[in-house]
Formats: sequence, structure tokens, C-alpha cells
Amino acid sequence: MGLKIEDYRAEIDVIDGELVRLLNMRARLAVEIGVLKRCAALPLYDPDRERGVLARACRANDGPLDDGAVIKIFRRIIGESRRVEARRAESLAAMRDGAD
Amino acid sequence: MGLKIEDYRAEIDVIDGELVRLLNMRARLAVEIGVLKRCAALPLYDPDRERGVLARACRANDGPLDDGAVIKIFRRIIGESRRVEARRAESLAAMRDGAD
Repeated sequence: MGLKIEDYRAEIDVIDGELVRLLNMRARLAVEIGVLKRCAALPLYDPDRERGVLARACRANDGPLDDGAVIKIFRRIIGESRRVEARRAESLAAMRDGAD
Repeated sequence: MGLKIEDYRAEIDVIDGELVRLLNMRARLAVEIGVLKRCAALPLYDPDRERGVLARACRANDGPLDDGAVIKIFRRIIGESRRVEARRAESLAAMRDGAD
């Protein structure tokens, strides 16, 4: 008797909880980087770094997702992280301007 | 002396490796579910399950990503998993048809 659909789904649910945790951990680090970049007057968007992240993700990929799928998922992750990063950098700048 | 951008990036790289691993583990489970569904002549797309996955991800979300970001990322993950699931189910069916 093999596993049932509900058993596989329960395993997916555990993985999803872990994915949410890691995605937020990643976003927190991106926010920290955004703060450092803002302090150093560096642009938030760094295409070289983004290419490096995607290349590294593809090297780590052993399937069944193909590289195209990994790239699409990571582009979305990077985009959403950058949105948080930009928002936090903005509010930090607003606080600082207010304090001047 | 605080952490530098490169230190944060090294932490993100570790997280990304773990994300790729979990995403593929998730896709493998989705493939197994696809096989079971195919055997039971059930449709691969299950909108109720998809809503449940998104709702669970949002409940697990404690930021800094907002729920909208989590939903967008998970829609992409689900979509790419389903693409692999459909491809595998197709090739399984082709093998079976060939064996008939």
C-alpha cells in the first residue's frame, strides 16, 4: 500500500512552511543590504549580483524542476525581496530626513 | 563594526541553496501526486487545494514579505511544480500506452 495524495500533501505543507520561513529570512537580509547600500549611496538594483544569484541557483538545481523553472521562481523571489528592500530603505531615509 | 554587504550576500547564497533543494523536493512530491491523480483519473488542477496552499502560506507569514508577495511567489512555485507534474504524468501515460 503506497502513500496517498493526502500524505504527499501533508509533506508539501511542511515544506511550504519552511519555504515561507526561508523567504522571509532572505528578505530580512535583503533589507539589511538595502540599508548598507543606502548609506553608501549605492543603487539598490545590481544586475551582476542578480545574474550571479540565478547562475548559482541553476548550478544547485538537480531537478525535477528545470533551470527555466528555477530562474522564473527566483526572479519572482528577487523581485519581491527588492520591493521590501526599497520600501524599507525609503522609510529609513524618511526617518533620517525627519531627524536632520 | 557591523556586517558588510558581502557577508549578508553569503548568507543569502546559503538560503538560496536550501530554497532550490526544498523547491525540488516539493516538485518531486507534486509529481507523485500527479501520478496518483492520473491513476485515479482525477484532474491535475485543483483550485481548492491551491487556495488552501496560499492561505496556509499567508498564515505562516510573519514578514517582512507581505502576504501579496508570498502569494505571488507561491503562485509561481505552484505553477512551475504543476508544469513538471503534467510533463511527468504525460510521459508516464505514454509509457503505459506503449506497454498496452
